[in-house]
Amino acid sequence: MVVVLENNATDEEIQNIVGHLENFGFSIHKSQGVQRTIIGAIGVKPDFDTRKIRILKGVYDVYRVTAPFKLASRSFKELDTVIKIKDVEIGGKNLALMAGPCSIESEEQIFKLAEVVAKSGTKILRGGAFKPRSSPYSFQGMGEEGLKLIRKAADEFGLVVITEVMEIAQIDLIAKYADIFQVGARNMQNFSLIKELGKAKLPVMLKRGLSGTIEEWLMSAEYMLAQGNKNVMLCERGIRTFEKYTRNTFDLSAIPVVHKKSHLPVIADPSHATGLRDQVAPMARAAVAAGADGLMIEIHHDPENALSDGPQALLPEQYNTLVGELRLIAQAIGRDLV
Amino acid sequence: MVVVLENNATDEEIQNIVGHLENFGFSIHKSQGVQRTIIGAIGVKPDFDTRKIRILKGVYDVYRVTAPFKLASRSFKELDTVIKIKDVEIGGKNLALMAGPCSIESEEQIFKLAEVVAKSGTKILRGGAFKPRSSPYSFQGMGEEGLKLIRKAADEFGLVVITEVMEIAQIDLIAKYADIFQVGARNMQNFSLIKELGKAKLPVMLKRGLSGTIEEWLMSAEYMLAQGNKNVMLCERGIRTFEKYTRNTFDLSAIPVVHKKSHLPVIADPSHATGLRDQVAPMARAAVAAGADGLMIEIHHDPENALSDGPQALLPEQYNTLVGELRLIAQAIGRDLV
Amino acid sequence: MVVVLENNATDEEIQNIVGHLENFGFSIHKSQGVQRTIIGAIGVKPDFDTRKIRILKGVYDVYRVTAPFKLASRSFKELDTVIKIKDVEIGGKNLALMAGPCSIESEEQIFKLAEVVAKSGTKILRGGAFKPRSSPYSFQGMGEEGLKLIRKAADEFGLVVITEVMEIAQIDLIAKYADIFQVGARNMQNFSLIKELGKAKLPVMLKRGLSGTIEEWLMSAEYMLAQGNKNVMLCERGIRTFEKYTRNTFDLSAIPVVHKKSHLPVIADPSHATGLRDQVAPMARAAVAAGADGLMIEIHHDPENALSDGPQALLPEQYNTLVGELRLIAQAIGRDLV
Amino acid sequence: MVVVLENNATDEEIQNIVGHLENFGFSIHKSQGVQRTIIGAIGVKPDFDTRKIRILKGVYDVYRVTAPFKLASRSFKELDTVIKIKDVEIGGKNLALMAGPCSIESEEQIFKLAEVVAKSGTKILRGGAFKPRSSPYSFQGMGEEGLKLIRKAADEFGLVVITEVMEIAQIDLIAKYADIFQVGARNMQNFSLIKELGKAKLPVMLKRGLSGTIEEWLMSAEYMLAQGNKNVMLCERGIRTFEKYTRNTFDLSAIPVVHKKSHLPVIADPSHATGLRDQVAPMARAAVAAGADGLMIEIHHDPENALSDGPQALLPEQYNTLVGELRLIAQAIGRDLV
Repeated sequence: MVVVLENNATDEEIQNIVGHLENFGFSIHKSQGVQRTIIGAIGVKPDFDTRKIRILKGVYDVYRVTAPFKLASRSFKELDTVIKIKDVEIGGKNLALMAGPCSIESEEQIFKLAEVVAKSGTKILRGGAFKPRSSPYSFQGMGEEGLKLIRKAADEFGLVVITEVMEIAQIDLIAKYADIFQVGARNMQNFSLIKELGKAKLPVMLKRGLSGTIEEWLMSAEYMLAQGNKNVMLCERGIRTFEKYTRNTFDLSAIPVVHKKSHLPVIADPSHATGLRDQVAPMARAAVAAGADGLMIEIHHDPENALSDGPQALLPEQYNTLVGELRLIAQAIGRDLV
Repeated sequence: MVVVLENNATDEEIQNIVGHLENFGFSIHKSQGVQRTIIGAIGVKPDFDTRKIRILKGVYDVYRVTAPFKLASRSFKELDTVIKIKDVEIGGKNLALMAGPCSIESEEQIFKLAEVVAKSGTKILRGGAFKPRSSPYSFQGMGEEGLKLIRKAADEFGLVVITEVMEIAQIDLIAKYADIFQVGARNMQNFSLIKELGKAKLPVMLKRGLSGTIEEWLMSAEYMLAQGNKNVMLCERGIRTFEKYTRNTFDLSAIPVVHKKSHLPVIADPSHATGLRDQVAPMARAAVAAGADGLMIEIHHDPENALSDGPQALLPEQYNTLVGELRLIAQAIGRDLV
Repeated sequence: MVVVLENNATDEEIQNIVGHLENFGFSIHKSQGVQRTIIGAIGVKPDFDTRKIRILKGVYDVYRVTAPFKLASRSFKELDTVIKIKDVEIGGKNLALMAGPCSIESEEQIFKLAEVVAKSGTKILRGGAFKPRSSPYSFQGMGEEGLKLIRKAADEFGLVVITEVMEIAQIDLIAKYADIFQVGARNMQNFSLIKELGKAKLPVMLKRGLSGTIEEWLMSAEYMLAQGNKNVMLCERGIRTFEKYTRNTFDLSAIPVVHKKSHLPVIADPSHATGLRDQVAPMARAAVAAGADGLMIEIHHDPENALSDGPQALLPEQYNTLVGELRLIAQAIGRDLV
Repeated sequence: MVVVLENNATDEEIQNIVGHLENFGFSIHKSQGVQRTIIGAIGVKPDFDTRKIRILKGVYDVYRVTAPFKLASRSFKELDTVIKIKDVEIGGKNLALMAGPCSIESEEQIFKLAEVVAKSGTKILRGGAFKPRSSPYSFQGMGEEGLKLIRKAADEFGLVVITEVMEIAQIDLIAKYADIFQVGARNMQNFSLIKELGKAKLPVMLKRGLSGTIEEWLMSAEYMLAQGNKNVMLCERGIRTFEKYTRNTFDLSAIPVVHKKSHLPVIADPSHATGLRDQVAPMARAAVAAGADGLMIEIHHDPENALSDGPQALLPEQYNTLVGELRLIAQAIGRDLV
């Protein structure tokens, strides 16, 4: 931690600051500049609240010089984390695709879409059984019945299942049917939930909150890593900005930044980022070109009658065309899309 | 709902759009403009996804003309909601103050602060027993032991207790000790939690999420109202913007807007909005001048040794001075601070 | 324009609203809904301030149903605008690359970089002679001397020149040396300047402001189109959001949206969007995959000694590698990079 | 400047970093921490681009420890700047009110409103002659004719005049008629314009850009101070955020922050911040309670027929009521509203 003093800090103020730092357990290095005196405070704990120093008289500013996350950082683990689920790998050179409907709606629907997914060469099937809806009047998902159906469809076509968990009480239930937990954007800082998921056996995909900074996103991953679950992947799905012509701003700039700061894989979700079918394909292509380790894409064979998010679902033939384009882009940047 | 057609929409496209609207159960009014044709679609359900129409060929744009919330709206209930807890009223002409420490830390601490609160004339005591912390390495609260202490201190000094609930499993426990549930900013859209709180007997104070729009905030209140809990109050605590010299941007403009759209009381929390002691007083004064129905303020008699958020806590004497200023401002705008 | 009435609007209020609308010159269509009455007001002028109706008693909300821009809209001109400068085309199927240093610094520097640009097959040379710097203490550009040098270098290597104009008094001077005017992000709503550029003979590239909405960006383009300059292209260069780990958030989602709303070409500038060399290549690739009509990229042979923005400049060999990758991505989505 | 090294930085990398720092003219202090090595680099110039160090191998992060502005800072000048224009003082203990129409429209209009202003005890008359409008189709102001009228009206009622300057060519003209230059939000970083205003004789009120950070705002003030104009005041008028129910988010939290960082007075403009008449009064009161040194408020005797921004103008009687409330709030916080 670096403490910068006011130009006109008095000796008494400086002694008080140094006293506090020592009480908090820091060792001290003082540098006298032309305009500013700087105190390097060595030995900061990851949860130290720098405001405790900032409010002292004579302090101009305080900077942390270590990230507040540790296990999630690239300096803790230099090599990319690769998560293995059955024969599927997420992270590393491969590009992992996940596709399926927003909500599981019926046996017929999920089987039809699982077939589309499998035939395209995609190995991970998505589908929601518990739905976080901003309106209390909207369809809230099929619950356990939906979980049974997606498991059955995935087994029929040799796929891996990812589905959303919304509360602690659902963890054990979902673990019976799914292969990957998905944490939704609105739960990125539901610390009770993510702490429990850190004790779970399955991998977790953590979506970035609409106003989650990259640092907070990595801190939430850290919560799970600290509890022992090493199989955490991140998912960018758009952030909230001032722009009104788009639903969210898909923050693709986050992808190279996360890759630099962390060893965890980053998936991109162009369906939720854009919210409209005709913007999904360009943003999916852009995400791969930007270096995403995978994509999550919503598809539906009859989107007009979908019970949720139909307008953002690709039709099966649109998905197939997109997968072809993504394969070429992956090659252009030296990655494999099997 | 209003559907605006493209200038060059064909007859076939228009017939297709009208057909869809009728299938969705709308009645139709068509208006031919100079440049644009507009279709008024009457009978929209609160959860209708307007994107279902927006993606049809020939559609230029779609506007909802009814708010997606109903029970929370001023048009549903014209008079201000006044929430009564024992002899305390929140909403209406009175200004309701809530004060206390960030976290309950010990019997001595909470009794000392409860005394400060009571002597200042403030009637509601705050204090956290379960703490949502962005770092897994930070103090996570005293749990039930803390709840027992705050109840005891409140009873000693005749105060009402508000404390945060973080997960469904805590609801019954907290209800044994507290008078008002607080939902934190990061849980504003934890729909599982707020749905359960809608069935609870105690009033709820719902903090606005860091990137929560006013509409989403009211939708989350609607979740609780729809489940039967009519005693919901809102709490503005700062939103996330591009500015880096402040921790959050305290959105006081939201106060008159919420008062126009909704009958629910709005509390303001300058402590979390600013995060630094010396900014709390000016922002507390500004919130009252802007029309807030109450304030939540963190205080501590020994902030340097507080286990959480010490740097934003007012000292007892600072709080007393502030209450005096607030009383004058309340008078200036015709409100009472008892 | 659509005027939605309050549920409980009185007859008197409605008559007053209708009277106002008629005075403003609108024709009126009234639709009675179950909950809401809607008035369609036909004949809105592009600059009508809808707040004039919104503040009347009995009005719930007002929506414009025509965009405030006209000449810039896709409905005014269906086919893509293609701007021709000598043998270079911007817009349409080709991908237009622009490259060069942030600032023109010396004859040797600009000639060296013009050669790199030309050899890579890129046809447009960028370089600033007048520099908008956020600090008054920074290098402010070489002025006319710089313009002479970039013209000479461009002529030597058969390139087209783009350079920034900061004030009205520079327009005629720059027109003597350059082929395209660039308007910087901070001047997107410098209406005095863009109005004058609308009367100029050269094409203009209009950068999006850091907080410019897509609508405002198109309105600023409209200013120039309305004055007679039809050769306007847009340039996305990152917007300002809450995220602190990136300099700006590169809003690639804006590209398909602008292409839907407008016929004007959209260039993307990954150098300014990211501000750091190692993020330029992934974002350049992503922009092409998202459908950008061109890219503007900063390069420097000796970035450590560059007088401005060295840290975001690609080295010549990095630029050459990138161009190769972009060619493959362009092919993957059916576009040509000559 | 503080340079934080990577945990695993090699000796060679460190030598390279130190070499660069020395070449840039810094003196070096090295501190070895448990996890991190920190290099204090003393002697940074105000315009040094820290990215030049950030991109070197082995560097984890770089922090400036001095603000990039100097003359505008509180550490350069400890006492509040008080700007004197005739018998009016802006800054210090007094609260300075400015009121008048958005645009000067006619002799009758400006005289009528100047009278309202003078009778309320307000001493500064506002009114625009050159209008920055987002649409090219909107009223663009009366020009010099308007300047003559506002001067005449101000002289009649003993008032001081503030009016907006949009381009360099208007500076001398406006100086003939006005007492204070106003720079609009969209020109906050029009560096050509503000550099020229730094050489002008009249005081300048600099509005904060919609996405201007407090630091950038102070840097733009620094531009003028560096040119010799010491009479600069700032004006907060709302920033752009994700919220859609308000036009802008009025950032009152900026007021105490600016007062801490700088000696310059801060005015608040609730009319532009909110854009709607019924929100102006609560936000005006809140701004005074938050510590603003003055307010700028738009008024109109016939807002329905105003040529610009009528919906946000207070009626004369509303303004008078507001001034009474502001007087009480000013007293409550120990300030004078004459």
